[in-house]
Amino acid sequence: MKPVNLSQKLAQFSSHWDPHVIADYNDNDVMVVRFQGEFPFHLHDDTDDFFLVLDGEMIMDVEDTSHSVKQGELFIVPRGVTHRPRAIHECKVLLIEPKGVPNTGDPATAAPKPRI
Amino acid sequence: MKPVNLSQKLAQFSSHWDPHVIADYNDNDVMVVRFQGEFPFHLHDDTDDFFLVLDGEMIMDVEDTSHSVKQGELFIVPRGVTHRPRAIHECKVLLIEPKGVPNTGDPATAAPKPRI
Repeated sequence: MKPVNLSQKLAQFSSHWDPHVIADYNDNDVMVVRFQGEFPFHLHDDTDDFFLVLDGEMIMDVEDTSHSVKQGELFIVPRGVTHRPRAIHECKVLLIEPKGVPNTGDPATAAPKPRI
Repeated sequence: MKPVNLSQKLAQFSSHWDPHVIADYNDNDVMVVRFQGEFPFHLHDDTDDFFLVLDGEMIMDVEDTSHSVKQGELFIVPRGVTHRPRAIHECKVLLIEPKGVPNTGDPATAAPKPRI
């Protein structure tokens, strides 16, 4: 039980689309992740997806709309909604998902979510 | 489904210890709140408590330790642990709790958590 500094955690890796678990909140993984380029379109049938932009800007493509989400803004994708995060320049994000949820929506292609 | 700007939401009220709901994540309220002064010691038997400092500094008193939690740092209080947030100067916080959880641990004294 101690404070978790998000910048210090982000400094521990440089890979993109590679969420790292930094804390637990009930049955959720609290993660930091770096976005750059395009992630695949995907959905989660059983959970919302929580994104808070810590630095930079991401684009969230949802259905027919592209949303710009900048530092200090959060975006929650409701369960069952197909979405694609992308970023032109590197963007740092706080991500919350229930434990065991594959980040791509598919266990076969999901990132491992190491703990740091 | 759109981006939520935390600063814009915080600008809509100035009261302290008065969490305002800005989004839903699964069965949780995502809230912004301003801390200044001392909150009562309390605990939540059934849930962890998620705090992310957006601006300023809070002190989290937990058991025999006082933790300084600064901008860009998060602190998660596990369920069942008695804690007291406080702040010498005003501090802005992103707070996540399951819906229906009284912020004081006691429905009789809990804040109403309006949605903005």
